[in-house]
Amino acid sequence: MSLTEDRFLGGRVIIRQPEAGFRAGLDAVMLAAAVPAEAGEEVLELGTGVGTAALCLLTRVAGVRAKGVEIDPPTAELGSANAAANGLLERMSLITGDIFALPACYRKPFDHVFANPPFHGEEGQAAPDPAKARALQDGGRLADWLRAGLKRTVSGGAFTTILRADRLSEALQALPERGISVFPLWPKAGVPAKRVILQARQGARSPMALLPGLVLHEADGRYTPEADAVLRGERGLTL
Amino acid sequence: MSLTEDRFLGGRVIIRQPEAGFRAGLDAVMLAAAVPAEAGEEVLELGTGVGTAALCLLTRVAGVRAKGVEIDPPTAELGSANAAANGLLERMSLITGDIFALPACYRKPFDHVFANPPFHGEEGQAAPDPAKARALQDGGRLADWLRAGLKRTVSGGAFTTILRADRLSEALQALPERGISVFPLWPKAGVPAKRVILQARQGARSPMALLPGLVLHEADGRYTPEADAVLRGERGLTL
Repeated sequence: MSLTEDRFLGGRVIIRQPEAGFRAGLDAVMLAAAVPAEAGEEVLELGTGVGTAALCLLTRVAGVRAKGVEIDPPTAELGSANAAANGLLERMSLITGDIFALPACYRKPFDHVFANPPFHGEEGQAAPDPAKARALQDGGRLADWLRAGLKRTVSGGAFTTILRADRLSEALQALPERGISVFPLWPKAGVPAKRVILQARQGARSPMALLPGLVLHEADGRYTPEADAVLRGERGLTL
Repeated sequence: MSLTEDRFLGGRVIIRQPEAGFRAGLDAVMLAAAVPAEAGEEVLELGTGVGTAALCLLTRVAGVRAKGVEIDPPTAELGSANAAANGLLERMSLITGDIFALPACYRKPFDHVFANPPFHGEEGQAAPDPAKARALQDGGRLADWLRAGLKRTVSGGAFTTILRADRLSEALQALPERGISVFPLWPKAGVPAKRVILQARQGARSPMALLPGLVLHEADGRYTPEADAVLRGERGLTL
């Protein structure tokens, strides 16, 4: 397996990941930026991959601990190695397993839960690599992922996920009507959103909020200052 | 009944409406701007009120004909009077009736259908006027309104509606997952959407689109040039 070494949050997080498979990037960083965890809290990530989102969160917010679960054994192993390489193994434990069959110590409610579910595949897109294929397609299980995430979230805590914008309708149908925030990621100003961050507050009664979201790129292709600040880990996203 | 006379589309549409009841305004104009009707087509509006949206559409797009249905008899009568006063009675017919019990000539599929359903009430908001109360609250029938609208839309035609943004989740659950466009109306840049225009293309297989929408006001409270052009009837909205 040929690996690359990629840097996130302005170089503070270094991630080794397969050159050919599904690759973590902007989505993972944006997801991590939207998790409202604070020092002393414990979070759970479902489908941790090579650990990018969790390690970005732990780096941005001191004093948070994370548990993660990843179904693909070599990917999970890489995730643990990445946690160690970033000096975060004390604050993060990662198991190989199925998010729908969690061990007892993962079934308690966590302060916050987050997931970048396997939803990235464009329609008709084929992924020759089996691990990548698994990360791209969910076999209609998006709703199950969302319900699993919310189920592990303590009352008042946030379940946060990032989705292809065209799956928003499907996602909203799996979640309660109340306590939901929708945060679109606009590739550029004036174009349709490609991704949305969706956050559900467990047990909240507040009406759904469609937030202005974040424009990622200027017309010339550079990141906007707001997106750049998030990618550098200088600020989180408030949903 | 004390009436006011209000001008829309830069004065080209004059609407008489009760001073005290539910009053048509920006929502109706934005809804009308989003209906993609063309010359030669016939449209249906469910819940026509005093006719503002339909008359704005007929004024903006020459050669379109409209049918409307309004449940409140005095409101429907005002709608017909408004159609006549704007010289549009030949292109518009309005009946008093229930959108859930339409007469035969209203049950055919129309080229496009639109509705500003009774959804405007903020939670806990009381409307002392019974006609206004009916226009503000839907008694949980939003989903029924949306299904009724889509049902009357010809294959390939658009059903267009405008909603409080916090009812987006509820609305999406009532509609198919595909062929949906969501067009947020942002009161100002950087704040949550208060309204969304939702458009469903009958039978379309395209993935849901979360569009950039329209910012209504500048920071100083004036309309943005884009919103102003729509309110003056100089352009429609493309969903």
